[in-house]
Amino acid sequence: MKKLFVIKIGGNVIDNEAALDVFLQKFARIDAPKLLVHGGGKIATRLGDKLGIESKYVDGRRITDDATIDLVTMVYGGLINKKIVAVLQSLGCNALGITGADGNLVPAEKRPVKTIDYGWVGDVKAGEMNGQTWSQLLEAGFVPVLAPLTHDGAGHILNTNADTMASSVAVCLGQQYDVRLIYCFEKKGILADIEKEDSAITHLNKENYTSLKAAGKLFAGILPKIDNAFAAIDAGVQEVLIGHADDLLQNTGATTTGTLITH
Amino acid sequence: MKKLFVIKIGGNVIDNEAALDVFLQKFARIDAPKLLVHGGGKIATRLGDKLGIESKYVDGRRITDDATIDLVTMVYGGLINKKIVAVLQSLGCNALGITGADGNLVPAEKRPVKTIDYGWVGDVKAGEMNGQTWSQLLEAGFVPVLAPLTHDGAGHILNTNADTMASSVAVCLGQQYDVRLIYCFEKKGILADIEKEDSAITHLNKENYTSLKAAGKLFAGILPKIDNAFAAIDAGVQEVLIGHADDLLQNTGATTTGTLITH
Repeated sequence: MKKLFVIKIGGNVIDNEAALDVFLQKFARIDAPKLLVHGGGKIATRLGDKLGIESKYVDGRRITDDATIDLVTMVYGGLINKKIVAVLQSLGCNALGITGADGNLVPAEKRPVKTIDYGWVGDVKAGEMNGQTWSQLLEAGFVPVLAPLTHDGAGHILNTNADTMASSVAVCLGQQYDVRLIYCFEKKGILADIEKEDSAITHLNKENYTSLKAAGKLFAGILPKIDNAFAAIDAGVQEVLIGHADDLLQNTGATTTGTLITH
Repeated sequence: MKKLFVIKIGGNVIDNEAALDVFLQKFARIDAPKLLVHGGGKIATRLGDKLGIESKYVDGRRITDDATIDLVTMVYGGLINKKIVAVLQSLGCNALGITGADGNLVPAEKRPVKTIDYGWVGDVKAGEMNGQTWSQLLEAGFVPVLAPLTHDGAGHILNTNADTMASSVAVCLGQQYDVRLIYCFEKKGILADIEKEDSAITHLNKENYTSLKAAGKLFAGILPKIDNAFAAIDAGVQEVLIGHADDLLQNTGATTTGTLITH
């Protein structure tokens, strides 16, 4: 199977224009089928402040009301997505900026109201994803750039978690490609010692993960990320890599600097 | 050759949510390959007012400065484009929302500064358009929804005239499809008598246009639109139709209510 890189960047890269430029230069140089999923960052919050749109929380959870979904549709789907596309195009990378609503590429549903009504928030319906639609775009030579938005099938845009979108796309395309799903963040990888930046664990599988976890060696905050990585692998993704945005090119190669997670 | 409808709607439809919904229901029902090009409308101006972004003019021409290009990228490429996509998807129409920057689908250049610096405004480089990229999207079953934005090849988004984008796409695809380019506006068509709404001229060709113009029977304001229509036809578009947004379905049929312009 052909190699495919599904790469996710978060707010820490997006919020820093210089860091984003450096990252995109690296991304453009990856010589293989690839796609980029980007998060939101703080631009929406700053713009919301100027417009008097307050961030609303219920029980510590952020709520996406009418004004907020319009705001993030503008910022994530418009400003951030198209800036990334324009920069990638200038670097010879044939970026195509989309959301999960476009072409129904990431089917979703409005999160059901149980104790909290999250508002216009989407949960991905991973089972309904259409791998053929995705591969048609990739085979046509496009490099999809995916903003963290979906739709509810009833005419509304939904705010959607970028990590989940990335893993859903990786799982779906794992049936047709040998997928490495790369989460870029601000650390070298999963650190064996949270105090030491150079202590990234080079390789995690279920066996050593179980023993490291049992020994209490892992930072608790990273455990959900690792569990999600194993869930993606169980669902058909070949490899998940968690590493620093600066190390993108090493982490698309054979010798990686981040934490490579396999079955 | 297969029939293709390239349809352009302007601000008068976009600014009225109810009118837009009615239009999109009609658009979704067109049973042929199709694509939609939308203009901007007043939403950007209203949002700009809230953000304290002033509309700037030099010699009566609107200038797109740094703040304004970010504003229209958000509103045209994000808010309007994705709302249209979500509504069309809910109607079973596989809309894919893009700008001219995405996939370099509409190559452009920053308008050269002669007497006026228009700022981040793009002129379409029609000769560089790639019909194969467009037809790949259409053949894959997508219905492209194009926002009036392009890029300069150097990493910047450009504000671009939606009428010109529509005619450029129509010309490019005229080599592979039998294209009817439809401009929807707020009149039934080109009126023989500007005072009479029901006086739409059913058919214009170069011959009767020349005599109508010579007789001073046409409203001067409409002449550039007609000249652009003939330019598109000379460049390879089969037919151009100018009609009311409400009459979209009639105007995609054999018996049209608007003004059909042919060679």
